[in-house]
Amino acid sequence: MKTYLQNVNAMLLLRRCHRLNPFGPLSIDRNQVAPVVASCAVRLCSSSNDQRFHQHGFSVSWRHVLAGLLAGTGAVLAYGLHHHKAIEKSSPLPIISQEEVTKHRSLKDGVWVTYKGGVYDITEFVSMHPGGEKIMMAAGGAIEPFWSLYAVHNQEHVLDILSGYKVGELNAEDLKKQYTFKSSDPYSSDPERHPVLHANSLKPFTAEPPPEILSDSYITPTAFFFKRNHLPVPQVDPDSYRLHVEGLPRGVLTLSLEELKTRFPKHTITATLQCAGNRRSEMNKAKQVKGLNWGVGAIGNATWSGAKLRDVLLAAGYGPDVAQWARHVQFEGLDKEITGSAYGASVPINKAISEEGDVLLAYEMNGEDIPADHGFPIRVVVPGVVGARSVKWLGKIVVSAEESSSHWQQKDYKGFSPGIDWDTVDYKSAPAIQELPVQSAITTPREGSVIDRSEEMLAAKGYAWSGGGREVIRVDVSLDGGKTWNVAKLKSSDKEGDQTSPPLGRAWAWKLWEITVPLPPEAQELELICKAVDNSYNTQPDTFGPIWNVRGLLGNAWHRVKVKINEDDDEE
Amino acid sequence: MKTYLQNVNAMLLLRRCHRLNPFGPLSIDRNQVAPVVASCAVRLCSSSNDQRFHQHGFSVSWRHVLAGLLAGTGAVLAYGLHHHKAIEKSSPLPIISQEEVTKHRSLKDGVWVTYKGGVYDITEFVSMHPGGEKIMMAAGGAIEPFWSLYAVHNQEHVLDILSGYKVGELNAEDLKKQYTFKSSDPYSSDPERHPVLHANSLKPFTAEPPPEILSDSYITPTAFFFKRNHLPVPQVDPDSYRLHVEGLPRGVLTLSLEELKTRFPKHTITATLQCAGNRRSEMNKAKQVKGLNWGVGAIGNATWSGAKLRDVLLAAGYGPDVAQWARHVQFEGLDKEITGSAYGASVPINKAISEEGDVLLAYEMNGEDIPADHGFPIRVVVPGVVGARSVKWLGKIVVSAEESSSHWQQKDYKGFSPGIDWDTVDYKSAPAIQELPVQSAITTPREGSVIDRSEEMLAAKGYAWSGGGREVIRVDVSLDGGKTWNVAKLKSSDKEGDQTSPPLGRAWAWKLWEITVPLPPEAQELELICKAVDNSYNTQPDTFGPIWNVRGLLGNAWHRVKVKINEDDDEE
Repeated sequence: MKTYLQNVNAMLLLRRCHRLNPFGPLSIDRNQVAPVVASCAVRLCSSSNDQRFHQHGFSVSWRHVLAGLLAGTGAVLAYGLHHHKAIEKSSPLPIISQEEVTKHRSLKDGVWVTYKGGVYDITEFVSMHPGGEKIMMAAGGAIEPFWSLYAVHNQEHVLDILSGYKVGELNAEDLKKQYTFKSSDPYSSDPERHPVLHANSLKPFTAEPPPEILSDSYITPTAFFFKRNHLPVPQVDPDSYRLHVEGLPRGVLTLSLEELKTRFPKHTITATLQCAGNRRSEMNKAKQVKGLNWGVGAIGNATWSGAKLRDVLLAAGYGPDVAQWARHVQFEGLDKEITGSAYGASVPINKAISEEGDVLLAYEMNGEDIPADHGFPIRVVVPGVVGARSVKWLGKIVVSAEESSSHWQQKDYKGFSPGIDWDTVDYKSAPAIQELPVQSAITTPREGSVIDRSEEMLAAKGYAWSGGGREVIRVDVSLDGGKTWNVAKLKSSDKEGDQTSPPLGRAWAWKLWEITVPLPPEAQELELICKAVDNSYNTQPDTFGPIWNVRGLLGNAWHRVKVKINEDDDEE
Repeated sequence: MKTYLQNVNAMLLLRRCHRLNPFGPLSIDRNQVAPVVASCAVRLCSSSNDQRFHQHGFSVSWRHVLAGLLAGTGAVLAYGLHHHKAIEKSSPLPIISQEEVTKHRSLKDGVWVTYKGGVYDITEFVSMHPGGEKIMMAAGGAIEPFWSLYAVHNQEHVLDILSGYKVGELNAEDLKKQYTFKSSDPYSSDPERHPVLHANSLKPFTAEPPPEILSDSYITPTAFFFKRNHLPVPQVDPDSYRLHVEGLPRGVLTLSLEELKTRFPKHTITATLQCAGNRRSEMNKAKQVKGLNWGVGAIGNATWSGAKLRDVLLAAGYGPDVAQWARHVQFEGLDKEITGSAYGASVPINKAISEEGDVLLAYEMNGEDIPADHGFPIRVVVPGVVGARSVKWLGKIVVSAEESSSHWQQKDYKGFSPGIDWDTVDYKSAPAIQELPVQSAITTPREGSVIDRSEEMLAAKGYAWSGGGREVIRVDVSLDGGKTWNVAKLKSSDKEGDQTSPPLGRAWAWKLWEITVPLPPEAQELELICKAVDNSYNTQPDTFGPIWNVRGLLGNAWHRVKVKINEDDDEE
């Protein structure tokens, strides 16, 4: 499965190859993309290190278009004008001291940065930066450490943009000092991952398993559980680890890992976690969105064991007096931005404090210590709620009257009307996603599969889940694009015939479903569809267009898979 | 708005007129249906009293088809065969004593009933009765009192069916005795209703207001609040009224109305109640369903005041010991079937006992004593849950390990896959409806409205609500059949600009919405659509076909209203 980003990158490389070939466009067959891309990549490696290549502004115009495509904002397109203005400046460029660079740390004084010995005045670019005002953190200094954290910048078009703003060369002595800082890759200590995972991005690491793995086991093996990190994986020493619980009248409660394990009863729940962006690739087909191009695999079901957040909050002094003003419980991870600010999120206080909310401070996943990618040594597990609130590498809990002020709570993970785009989006107008809507997907067969007519029957499998502890009560499957429907068999475990129901409102785990139906006579192609119904009788919308939203979240329209029927039976 | 039942009856009457006219079919314009129906009705009144007309089996075949249409089951169609067999029996029929009739009260001995002096052997019909085994209650006696309770029988085709089973005449003395029983209409003491209500059935009374009334007031005036009775309205003397709370270790707690009002704190909530059949008429268009043909008005929003069910249960001895085994709270109404069994329903114990569940034993609706049609003197109000569980004329509360065994809990108010029909439905396979899915509808403009181009703007209004206390966070409105969407303005009260949010998980009341958008140039017809999103980001499905179910419940697909734009502006 090729992601959107990969597709765009491939397109970028192909177009570059066209430009670099002096004899005109190469004739490239669709099936030959991979080797062509590889050879282009080699050429690009050398060219991107060639400063003069950029300074002479060689064929930059098409790159602006692609930069816009990649960043997903019109703003970047506008930079072209400024760019051309900049590169018309005369050479050679002046030598500039770090002291001088450091004076330029505001829009008023100008915003300068250094990169590999060059000095760049990016003042005009600040308002166009797709990542927003974060760019100001780099003002007056070297940009390399930011780019190694936010690895999305490691693309050639980003260097193109930067090159247009060059105003000088850093003096040699100051440059030498910069290199005395350790410029290690903050992702270099990330753990090893199973190669079967399909990575949507490497830094931060986000990846999903092949869908058929999901329906092969009611409990998703940890190695195959989707990973959605937002920052480098922090390395936490379990002996010196401390969790801080703040905001309560008795002051800060500090707990070691050992205390968390021994002072509070150990609870185990089976809960499904899903990324809000699961199935974004399908929404992307309705109309382009911004975000990781997830398939149907950004979901997994695991057993989680740990202390109940409720118990820890009560031990820290939560009581009726606190209930008067407390509205949210904020979580901070130990995974940090270069500024030192942590990944953060919050959940409503009633979810956190309720007996039936089952929010855990988990130290085990599937019966073993939570591994590094999933939050070692402690992650919050907020069952029934979008994965983004189940903060990993938990460092701090704050009981508060306010939601987390983090980017991920305030400016991401919210849903909008299909009529809202990046020009009109108002993040204050929508609530942070907590409970997720009812969801289901077909994990097998895969799109484009071919089934022999001689098999006579079609077997399909998948998963179904709903947020808020609402139990999935039915999955309907259609073979004819939604005209007629069959009821699938639901599984609540890997035990044959297990149909036990969880307590009402606490159905945290998915159901797997399967169905075997006769192949319709005549049909040469089938459009398989699944849709689930939960015990509030909510169901999935038919199509993606009307639930499209700028961030590509909450994609829960019917899952559709086309398969072909092969009439030939000439295997012998 | 004409209901489905009215349409079928009109069709029945029209077809009968065709038959009765010896000169062939009448030429009838669609617009002339009403007077024709009226004149046919007169003829039918006389003909239905004409015993010989039925006995000679005059033109009965088409009536079987219509009977099937009306009853909605294939079973009734099958009766035709038996019918013909029966009416071929020779006349005159024997005189039979009541003593003899009374001997026939089982399938083994035969099932006989009397009706207006006739004796009928309905043994073969029992299995085909659309109302199921209830018919056995009438075995051996007069059927009239049942038919005055279940007034659906007061249709001519039912008499047609009965006439086919005639086996004799009741002897004159026994017939005289029957008439000494008071044969009053149990619905005769039903209260007066406002004439603006559109009745879907009169006995029991079920009616809805015109949709525009709903969006004209955040609180639905009591007189206009939809009525959905299942049985005659009981007349309850408030002084002798007693509520019995059973199933708890301390024994039965009996409370007078005065005690309910004085022993427990008075709570007031604003909550929307919706019938599970709301919008059935739209689902009916996808494919015929069985049930009252509701428009979009089987929903209303009122303030309710009363004692919290939680408080009453605690006073009656609910405690941790009870929590070990109790799973449901059953409610019984004082509205009774002829057998004496009451309307009944139940809700899960955690909804009933939760502080945040807000289940009330309400004695006030919109600030006044609850009126007779809405449950005087006490009705349960289960906010966030299908109306059928908010039992009116509450007589008994039973804490139990089991759900209510009532017909309405076990064999009605459940949802099924569109692939399930009356032949395959298994009521045990689906849970009783409790929380309802997200819903919205357009109340104005009405279907078929004409808007003058000169008005330039289109103003639309409606309501939106979701079950389970989930707050509606957005309503999207399309003018072009779902291609593009606008965000409507939401109202949480009649106060201008009021955007207060209820506590999380306790959004029991609907939101009204409104939007004013420019009329699209060129367009001659608009397809308006609304769809709502709740704070679990559940949304409504696009179309009715894929959520179709045999009982026509849970109709929450997008609401679509077509309006025409009148380009002429020649009013002067």
